[in-house]
Parts: sequence; C-alpha cells; structure tokens
Amino acid sequence: MSVLIVGSTALDSIKTPKAENPRLLGGSASHAAVAASFFGPVKLIGVVGEDFPKRYIQIYKRHRIDLEGLQILPGKTFHWSGEYEANMNNRRTLLTELGVFETFTPTLLNSHQNASFVLLANIAPSLQIHVLDQMQRPKFVVADTMDLWLNIALPDLLKLVKRLDAFVLNDSEAHQLTKEGNVFSALKKIHKLGPKYVIIKKGSHGSLLSGPQGIFICPAFPLHKVVDPTGAGDSFVGGMIGYLATADGPIERNMRRAMVYGSVVASFCCEGFGLTSTTRINRKQIDQRVRALERLTRF
Amino acid sequence: MSVLIVGSTALDSIKTPKAENPRLLGGSASHAAVAASFFGPVKLIGVVGEDFPKRYIQIYKRHRIDLEGLQILPGKTFHWSGEYEANMNNRRTLLTELGVFETFTPTLLNSHQNASFVLLANIAPSLQIHVLDQMQRPKFVVADTMDLWLNIALPDLLKLVKRLDAFVLNDSEAHQLTKEGNVFSALKKIHKLGPKYVIIKKGSHGSLLSGPQGIFICPAFPLHKVVDPTGAGDSFVGGMIGYLATADGPIERNMRRAMVYGSVVASFCCEGFGLTSTTRINRKQIDQRVRALERLTRF
Repeated sequence: MSVLIVGSTALDSIKTPKAENPRLLGGSASHAAVAASFFGPVKLIGVVGEDFPKRYIQIYKRHRIDLEGLQILPGKTFHWSGEYEANMNNRRTLLTELGVFETFTPTLLNSHQNASFVLLANIAPSLQIHVLDQMQRPKFVVADTMDLWLNIALPDLLKLVKRLDAFVLNDSEAHQLTKEGNVFSALKKIHKLGPKYVIIKKGSHGSLLSGPQGIFICPAFPLHKVVDPTGAGDSFVGGMIGYLATADGPIERNMRRAMVYGSVVASFCCEGFGLTSTTRINRKQIDQRVRALERLTRF
Repeated sequence: MSVLIVGSTALDSIKTPKAENPRLLGGSASHAAVAASFFGPVKLIGVVGEDFPKRYIQIYKRHRIDLEGLQILPGKTFHWSGEYEANMNNRRTLLTELGVFETFTPTLLNSHQNASFVLLANIAPSLQIHVLDQMQRPKFVVADTMDLWLNIALPDLLKLVKRLDAFVLNDSEAHQLTKEGNVFSALKKIHKLGPKYVIIKKGSHGSLLSGPQGIFICPAFPLHKVVDPTGAGDSFVGGMIGYLATADGPIERNMRRAMVYGSVVASFCCEGFGLTSTTRINRKQIDQRVRALERLTRF
C-alpha cells in the first residue's frame, strides 16, 4: 500500500567540525520519503520555491516518489542552516528562512485522501492536523515532532496526538512533554494523550517502542563514522512506515521489525551529508544491515 | 570454578535528590562479590577497619563469600561519600577517607593463587597488578577501572591492561584513554593495548563487547525507578564473571550471555540503596529478568 508523507521540503546548509555543505536537499519529508521509497510507493506533500534545484526534483523522481502533491510556488524554498559540535550530538540552528513555507497550506488531491499509511513528518502540528482532516479512512497514522512545537504550539500538538496511531518523539522531548525523568512514567503519560504506540528516539542509543505488546528496545546500528546526523530521525520514521505499509500481516506484529528497518535506514543517512548517503543505497543493502543488526544483538 | 575478586570494601554514604543513606556496605569488591555469588563460589580479597559493622560481614557470609582474604586491620574502613543529581547519571564525590585502604597490600593465600577466574575490580592499578603477580595460571582475568586512575596512574593502568583477557571501562573513560570520539576507533586502540575482549559500559544505555567474534550490543534492563546507581558497574562485572566461571563451554561462546547476566544484576543493584536490592534477590529472579530482556529485544 502506498504511503502518504507530508512535512518540510527544504534546503539545508550544514556545518560540521570537518566540512560545510550549503543548500543540500533536506527537510523532514524529503528524508522520510526517500527512506520509505525503498519499500514501496510514496506520495509526497510539500512546497518548494522557484529556486528549488531541478536536480533535487530528479532525486525524488529516481526514488519513484509521486510528486503530484509537491507545490512549486513563487518565492524561496525553506532554508535551514545548522552547525554540529564535535560530538555530532549537539547542534545549533544558525538560520531559518521560511520562504514559501510560511503560507504553506497542504491541499490533498483525491488520490492522496484515500492513502492507508500516513506519515505526518515534522512540521507545525496545525499543518499536520490540516492534512489529517482531509484523509478519508487511513489505516495507520504516525506523526513525528520537534521541541520547537512543544515550545510554541503545544495545544495544537496535543490535539494532533489524540488522533494518532503512533507518536514519535525523542527522549528529551518526552521528558519536556511529561516532566517525567523515568521513561516508563513518560510513556504512560504519553499513551494517555491518545496514541496506541509511542516511540521514543534516543539517537545513537537506539529507540524504544511502547505498544499493546509491551516494550521493544530497538538498537541503533553502530557506525564507524558519523558524517552528518541531519535527517536521521526523519529517515527512521520514513523507513519504519515504508516497511509497515508493505509488510504482510497485522501492524502489531510488524512494528518491531519496522523500527529496526527505520533504524537501519537512519544509520545510512548519518554516513553522508544530507541525503547523499541515503540516495546511494538499495533495499539489498538495507536487508544486509538488518541481518547484521540481528547478529550484533543476539545472545 | 571459583572466582577471585579483589577491589575496595568500603562504607558508602550516598545522597540522592530523594534520600540520604550514611555508611552503607559498598566498594567495588563488595558489589562485584555479591553479584558473582548468585552463580557460584566467590573468594573476596579486601581490607576493612575495626569499625566495619559485623552485620556487613554477615551479608558477605549469607552470600557464601569466602572471607579468608578479607583483612580486618586497626583503623577506619575506607569511606566514600557522594551525591547524585536529579537525573541520577551525574554524581560528585563529597568525601573520600582512605583509612586502612591507604596501606592495603593484598597478599594472596595459596588457596587464592590458583583461582581460574579473576576479577580485578576497581582499585588502584598498582594493587590490581600486585594481585595478578601472585596468581599462578588464571584462565581468565578481567579488570574494571575508573577515570581517577586514568588521571593519576595511567602508566600503571597501561601495564595492567597489557596482561588482561578483558578490560572493562565506561564510554567517557574509553574516550579519555584513546582521544577517539567514535567507539570503533576507540575499541581498536584499546585492543592494541593488549586485551582480547574490550567491554565499554554505557550506563542505562547498555554496554558493548568487542572480541574475536566481533561486536555485541548488550542491552540494559529498563527500570521503572532508579533509586541509586552506585555499584551498578561493579555488579555488572561481578555478575558477568560469576556467570562465565560457572557456564559450560568455551568462554568465547559464553561472553554475550555473561554480559546480559551482568547487565541484569546491575539493574537490580540500581533499584535500592547500596546493596539493599541486590542482597534481596535470587538466581531465579535473575533468570526471569534475563528472559524478559530476551523478549524486550527480540525482533
């Protein structure tokens, strides 16, 4: 079944202690859509400006991403610029130019509205809600978020979370949202907000699933070199929903493996700037790394 | 086969944001010996002062720990006092009174010298070397350490590491020792110092084994409540060597499971002040938690 993904489509200028790369293809929806594309058909909802490089459109197309929902508007593409510290965990935003994103109102075509699997990648929760309002009867809706929305749009975020099957956030956001230091206490409070599944991302320490079948500790694939972690979280949810949408059997039974697949796609993402590493891989390499992760964790 | 454990035997005064507990039974060898005792016979090498409470001797005895190597000397028992921050990860030392530990020279009896499994729990590397010098032909020697020794006794520590089968340290110590941010680069450098197995502890994020059979990602057992993490690392190595010494088959094949057992004993340790939780459990509860960890990580 096809996956509908809405989120940001952006240009990222990324600085690490070792290199600087201006105006890469980025944004939560770009990373998530490419990640999901390894598993099955993906429809992208987003907006870019007239300055959006043609070669980036080609990247989407090479991944057979349906671009009917990608608006190209007069003005500038959303541009984010950030800098990582030496440990590659802490980053600070240097610049955010919203451009055409400022007035973005995603309007779904008929062909979008009946999608079964929906990923509301990280954008303003009001936009995530706006997309969800237009959906007919999605089978599975997952949303990702970021600390910014907890700070400036919490009421919207809470309205959204109520309607989700799965909510993805990172450990510091879970702590910020619930004021709970212990992860079980935090999970309990987040489940009470609505979602059946809660997924807490912990960067290079992996992630945690809480759902009807209990807790799953999902490992991160250990990397010899982290080049740029930008988009890793988006790749994680993208890979996850891509796998879920195409796997046989009930969602409940596929969730753990879906997270492992997400984790593996995220690991590839970290090995290059922006999408450069992710766009070079194929399903076979992903499967190989999933098998390697099985060997690394078996006891 | 019996396990010989040398390390500190101390009184710990521990302050957390929720409680304060003075003069608990503590020290690296106490935690490690109790942890190892669930699997088989343990011989303890240490020193305490005349102020050491009789009831603490009784705790060792209840765990059938051989105390022939525990010296009781005129003077005061080593006393450590520390305080944890709210997140229970950061702690600071408030006080260290060495007492009889200042002149401690472990002299091994004949019955100690032929032990097959030796755990050099965290004490000054010169003392760890002194014990190792007296051993006849140990089958497996593992040592733990702490940042203090990297700072003030690095030459001794490097001499020790050369002679170990397994070296255990935490992630920040691995970084400090090798100046490598990436864990694979750090592991490579530490293997070059001598040990066949290198184990990097990552607190609540689990641990990592590097050995002839590659890498193993060992999970931590997720806890609903962390009361006091003091001694968790010591419990981890204690549980690990306790399992190794009693498991059938070659060490190489048992290492992963040994780490999981260590991880589980460490999780119990964190659930009470000092040794209060660890001394209340039994082998059956440990096995149950190991099986739970299998379920939590299976995909």
